[in-house]
Amino acid sequence: MQDKLTLMIPGPTPVPETVLQALGRHPIGHRSADFQKIVKRTTEQLQWLHQTQHEVLVITGSGTAAMEAGIVNTLSRGDRVLCGDNGKFGERWVKVAKAYGLDVQVIKAEWGQPLDPEAFKAALEADTAKAIKAVILTHSETSTGVINDLQTIAAHVRAHGTALTIADCVTSLGATDVPMDDWGVDVIGSGSQKGYMMPPGLSFVAMGPRAWQAYERSDLPKFYLDLGKYRKAAADNSNPFTPAINLYFALEAALEMMEKEGLKAIFARHARHQRATSAAMQAIGLPLYAAAGHGSPAITAVAPDGIDAESLRKEVKNRFDILLAGGQDHLKGHVFRIGHLGFVADRDILTAVAAIEATLQDLGLGKVATGAGVAAAATELAKG
Amino acid sequence: MQDKLTLMIPGPTPVPETVLQALGRHPIGHRSADFQKIVKRTTEQLQWLHQTQHEVLVITGSGTAAMEAGIVNTLSRGDRVLCGDNGKFGERWVKVAKAYGLDVQVIKAEWGQPLDPEAFKAALEADTAKAIKAVILTHSETSTGVINDLQTIAAHVRAHGTALTIADCVTSLGATDVPMDDWGVDVIGSGSQKGYMMPPGLSFVAMGPRAWQAYERSDLPKFYLDLGKYRKAAADNSNPFTPAINLYFALEAALEMMEKEGLKAIFARHARHQRATSAAMQAIGLPLYAAAGHGSPAITAVAPDGIDAESLRKEVKNRFDILLAGGQDHLKGHVFRIGHLGFVADRDILTAVAAIEATLQDLGLGKVATGAGVAAAATELAKG
Repeated sequence: MQDKLTLMIPGPTPVPETVLQALGRHPIGHRSADFQKIVKRTTEQLQWLHQTQHEVLVITGSGTAAMEAGIVNTLSRGDRVLCGDNGKFGERWVKVAKAYGLDVQVIKAEWGQPLDPEAFKAALEADTAKAIKAVILTHSETSTGVINDLQTIAAHVRAHGTALTIADCVTSLGATDVPMDDWGVDVIGSGSQKGYMMPPGLSFVAMGPRAWQAYERSDLPKFYLDLGKYRKAAADNSNPFTPAINLYFALEAALEMMEKEGLKAIFARHARHQRATSAAMQAIGLPLYAAAGHGSPAITAVAPDGIDAESLRKEVKNRFDILLAGGQDHLKGHVFRIGHLGFVADRDILTAVAAIEATLQDLGLGKVATGAGVAAAATELAKG
Repeated sequence: MQDKLTLMIPGPTPVPETVLQALGRHPIGHRSADFQKIVKRTTEQLQWLHQTQHEVLVITGSGTAAMEAGIVNTLSRGDRVLCGDNGKFGERWVKVAKAYGLDVQVIKAEWGQPLDPEAFKAALEADTAKAIKAVILTHSETSTGVINDLQTIAAHVRAHGTALTIADCVTSLGATDVPMDDWGVDVIGSGSQKGYMMPPGLSFVAMGPRAWQAYERSDLPKFYLDLGKYRKAAADNSNPFTPAINLYFALEAALEMMEKEGLKAIFARHARHQRATSAAMQAIGLPLYAAAGHGSPAITAVAPDGIDAESLRKEVKNRFDILLAGGQDHLKGHVFRIGHLGFVADRDILTAVAAIEATLQDLGLGKVATGAGVAAAATELAKG
């Protein structure tokens, strides 16, 4: 049977029909008044989603392009930066920073553990010479299912006085509260195939006023990712380069759906799904990978002790056409991950839990009576 | 009346229903076997389109991203490059090269004139020290409707011995013959919203073996545009970053349509449309902007002496919902451009000519009897 695939990976996430239909429209000219209307409308919607009054710029590219743009537009060769690294994406921003010749000080935590805000505080307080120009970190670490305490770390950066906070909110934005202006986050990068309920292809960089001041000083080479060009074009409701027009149609439709649901309801839904998924996995004897109390609202990583995670994941795909994510790098085979990000309903959580339980039963690997997970999930979902 | 827009601009170009329907499918995981099949298939199709045995890599981004990738992956800080500049895109590659600290020697031609291959030959022959590392030029200059003689210039570059040819084939690939391997072009950049008959959002970089040798030496900073990462992923039929999955669906569908039509038929169609459009404009007394014999198969620029090109263009849009392109930069108001690139049939040429004639008649600006343009176009179209 074809076309019954359900995506429960941390991206691409499921896309509503309304959004797919918008995507499939005939393109229009990107220098037309009709397209300018879409840019104007989506810019307002993006500001609403980021809870910011400042620019949110749209790049045709992946979330990595957005994060790279945030870094290369605010920093200069040799600048000292602090990078938080507790997973694959933390590692990636270290690599980007090094590729551009930045002086990188890494603050690590074990995979599965959150970054320690006190470590950032100490490093920032020790920097009396104000050599640290930016703190780069991942809010929701997709590889481990851990949410980092961006709010507290950003506050420590503000106390430092001159450093910027550059945050990868790729799997947190649209899943949990990220009030950019309130928290004083200077740069936020995100991508369309996540909480946005869209296919991949667009990425977003929000830039606060301190980030723009840094832009004026930045000497790292850039052209396609030069955000000054995007800002200038955005002032005329346009883009500096031909954007992915059809993905803009989808963006407008998806953000309209998000506005209708409302931020509070969206965040509550993701929190509920995180709780339900976690409770279900624990009820069926599959330990969580993320440290207790630090689970991401976007994704739950499960480390099924004594069971090959990759075999289980593949069997769930083969039997039920639900695509779960595997473990990345050294976690491959040890971890599987259940995405509950974006266009995910309570029903999808029940379905995923039931399918995992049924697969464990089929494989003779169930540790408890089949149904315990669904019961635990249902209990959490009922709490609203 | 809505939804009757006809695009006759040089991008985005019209998109077939088959391609839009592919675009609107539910996304699948980009690390799945099903997606690997699509990457494998489209890579073969792209090699066919580029007439190359070497890598053609897919970037989520615009044509500028592809050209920037070609430059930053093969060159190093301070490298001397020759840039051809006879229009807006030639100018752009000069800007990109300078943004990355290259030592740029510009070979200019007036807008509307082709680049002079002899000027490249002379500069390359004078470079006995072999300081020139690359020649960067635009094949079809979209801003002026001029096609440059890439074949001859690439041959001069080969005679130099060490320099690379980096060619912007954004509006020539899929419109006219660009046999990459036969001509010895080292890097070709292109974009999806052109001859590919797709919406914008994907761009393509073809890299020959000499370009990969240069990659090993290149020290320009890059991460998202690091083609080494794309090559490594492509060997596994994958992408290094989450690609625009739905645009890949569209790519596969569009290239399949192109394969069915065949390269020779596609090139003959574009040549016919160029001839028909040019003949029609001349028949109705509207001079061509590009020098005679150097018209691009993708786009015809018209300089309607004594008529405000922008008013005419807007009236054609208002009356008939055909979007023509305006003049760029100093050509605004002096030139309008008729795109005949990609999914364009003979009927569309007749329609555009008829609409322009009707608009001139409405505005009282016709210089000859209305219908002369259609007659001239029909004559050329009938030649096949």
